[in-house]
Amino acid sequence: MRRHKEPEVRKSEILDAAQKLFIEKGYAKTTVTDILNVHGLSKGVFYYYFKSKEEVMDAIIGRIVDASVNNAKKIVANPQMTPPQKLCAILMGQGQTEEMIKDRENIAHQFHEAENAEMHQKSLVQSIKCLAPVMAEILKEDNGANTFSTDYPQETVALFLAAGQTIFDEGLFSWSGEERARYGAAFIEMIEKTLGVPAGYFKDVIKIFA
Amino acid sequence: MRRHKEPEVRKSEILDAAQKLFIEKGYAKTTVTDILNVHGLSKGVFYYYFKSKEEVMDAIIGRIVDASVNNAKKIVANPQMTPPQKLCAILMGQGQTEEMIKDRENIAHQFHEAENAEMHQKSLVQSIKCLAPVMAEILKEDNGANTFSTDYPQETVALFLAAGQTIFDEGLFSWSGEERARYGAAFIEMIEKTLGVPAGYFKDVIKIFA
Repeated sequence: MRRHKEPEVRKSEILDAAQKLFIEKGYAKTTVTDILNVHGLSKGVFYYYFKSKEEVMDAIIGRIVDASVNNAKKIVANPQMTPPQKLCAILMGQGQTEEMIKDRENIAHQFHEAENAEMHQKSLVQSIKCLAPVMAEILKEDNGANTFSTDYPQETVALFLAAGQTIFDEGLFSWSGEERARYGAAFIEMIEKTLGVPAGYFKDVIKIFA
Repeated sequence: MRRHKEPEVRKSEILDAAQKLFIEKGYAKTTVTDILNVHGLSKGVFYYYFKSKEEVMDAIIGRIVDASVNNAKKIVANPQMTPPQKLCAILMGQGQTEEMIKDRENIAHQFHEAENAEMHQKSLVQSIKCLAPVMAEILKEDNGANTFSTDYPQETVALFLAAGQTIFDEGLFSWSGEERARYGAAFIEMIEKTLGVPAGYFKDVIKIFA
């Protein structure tokens, strides 16, 4: 006899099964039936939780974005880190578990398949929307003589995220090592100047994480 | 008897027909046969010019990007405009003909249909790659006391384009009027600070074009 499972557990099981299939078979080629077959579920159970395969993908993206937002919140709350260290840590994706990175990479690989560009866009938009308010808190912190100066903390970090996540996306641009290094330097210059801290301020912080 | 047409004319005819169909029916729903039927062409003629429907879309994106690059080049070469006017004119898409704007809007509408996210990404990547070197020339111009200061002109404008084209894309983010205004102000602040010109420098220039 099938044990009765908590709705959240069941939902999470469906998401795990779907995520695995999307990575292995591709999003377009995976059917709702494929997802159901993993745990022998009925269509009724599936449609109780989700309207469509697209909604499953949205929920998977939501989980990945939530994980990175929770990670960012931990960094913001860390009393041992200075504001620039926090900002760089989040921009560079520090502090994420191996599982988080693997999940994101696997899904990102799917994003770069032609038919999955939509998920890629959704994930970019969600991560900008959710990370910007968390990161904006860092810009408001007291940072002594180098307190960040911007009248638009949330919008400014959103612009940084949009620029960085587009230009450094290896599925979109295939830069040479030299080009990548120049873009990295230009990105840091832009952040330093926009936040009104001395040139090289973030460069030193980034070395700590390198 | 069918008149013999120049290859470029024929190619352009196929692109025009395909562009019209992609806009009317959607990219996914348009078949190669649909494209051929517009001018009663054979498959042989089609495959002489293009490998696939995807290659037709790439060529359409290429035409649109080329038109905006040519427009940018004219602005850069305009002796009546100051460097900040040129930069703003290109970032704000000034000087484009109504046809160019209509073409881009129609195609952009298609981009925002779920299945067309890939074209949207391609168009973003191509326009950043092609516009950045042209715009970088402006940053190198003598602008008197307010000459732009960046060691990475091309990379810096590419970051501006990536941030602006993502955040201000109405198909990706649906900002309220107030949010949009804040993003606009943050974007201008970022550009001014990064290029080392006084606060409000571009704000005044933008008013001219408003």
